[in-house]
Amino acid sequence: MIFDVATAATLESVLRWRRDVRHFRPDPLPEAEIEALCRAMDFAPSVGNARPWRVLRVKTVAKRAALRVIFEAENAAALATYTGDQAADYARLKLAGLDAAPEQLAVFTVVDPEAGHRLGRRTMPVTLEHSTAMAVHTLWLAARARNIGLGMVSILDPAAVEAAFDAPAGWRFSAYLCLGYAEENSDTPLLHRLGWQENTPTRWDEV
Amino acid sequence: MIFDVATAATLESVLRWRRDVRHFRPDPLPEAEIEALCRAMDFAPSVGNARPWRVLRVKTVAKRAALRVIFEAENAAALATYTGDQAADYARLKLAGLDAAPEQLAVFTVVDPEAGHRLGRRTMPVTLEHSTAMAVHTLWLAARARNIGLGMVSILDPAAVEAAFDAPAGWRFSAYLCLGYAEENSDTPLLHRLGWQENTPTRWDEV
Repeated sequence: MIFDVATAATLESVLRWRRDVRHFRPDPLPEAEIEALCRAMDFAPSVGNARPWRVLRVKTVAKRAALRVIFEAENAAALATYTGDQAADYARLKLAGLDAAPEQLAVFTVVDPEAGHRLGRRTMPVTLEHSTAMAVHTLWLAARARNIGLGMVSILDPAAVEAAFDAPAGWRFSAYLCLGYAEENSDTPLLHRLGWQENTPTRWDEV
Repeated sequence: MIFDVATAATLESVLRWRRDVRHFRPDPLPEAEIEALCRAMDFAPSVGNARPWRVLRVKTVAKRAALRVIFEAENAAALATYTGDQAADYARLKLAGLDAAPEQLAVFTVVDPEAGHRLGRRTMPVTLEHSTAMAVHTLWLAARARNIGLGMVSILDPAAVEAAFDAPAGWRFSAYLCLGYAEENSDTPLLHRLGWQENTPTRWDEV
């Protein structure tokens, strides 16, 4: 398969318009879109093909409420480490989207997966987390191309999340994802618009 | 920006044809392509916008030789943990591509980056590695869309790589990447063709 120049341009457009979405419309995602997003994760790279990501689709009110409690506790603790304008900014960010997002996923990483025969994980077990992160990124891009927003929540105590979801032994919490149609589209990421942080360009220094 | 249905199809094609490339043609990549790939990493998501990835472009014979020595030591150790056919398979995989790939990158993660004000990293420092992994995946897809192959090497002792590249304090080795034009294109990943591992489909279980 040789791609034409239009392919690189299309990909760049998806990459450029991917956003960490925090403000969702409440209308549900069609099940066909859910299925397409689930299938997209199958294309993710995986070190040694371990495919260590595990995904729970959080549907029940009880489980969502439990996650909300864990988030609120961590959010308060995080706020306490900032002062003044920064703290106000932080609160304004409304990082969660947890209340509105119609679809929510808890993503875990299996610490010692059967699959992949441990290839490439002997010296660098962190490659398991790398694989899960790349699967999440694959999902993120597939969602954006379908005009579905995704927000990643990491202000959470991993052990508390594992307990709340009765995670099997060996599952380590990696990320909580909110999905839905975005309330708005912008070419400027939310953190930038709020003055949080400008992007520093990537450099490749030679050695 | 609302994408049309062709966008999702194009993205899926790039995702589907991404490969962990091990066999490279030796001809160099044009500098314009190198620059485009470097810029692509700027589009990567980053938890709290920390942007913790650091990239060294490994050009010198001495640095490449040092990396080769680290790989060979780890490869021998890894081989010793397998037996029989698995060991033979493993050797046959020729995981490195290190000898042929015209472009090679050492990717590190800054443990405590200034950028991003620690947002979202208080309870989950692993999100820094997640960000680096997503930046590598962004590069991987951008390369594939430009018909450039990428192979990720993780059979390496991270401390040895950090020492070999005189990594500044606080840089943690994350991945070594080989880039170049692939010797062949296939719709079946190398690990599958060699009978290493079939893909297990991703499931989203409900809770």
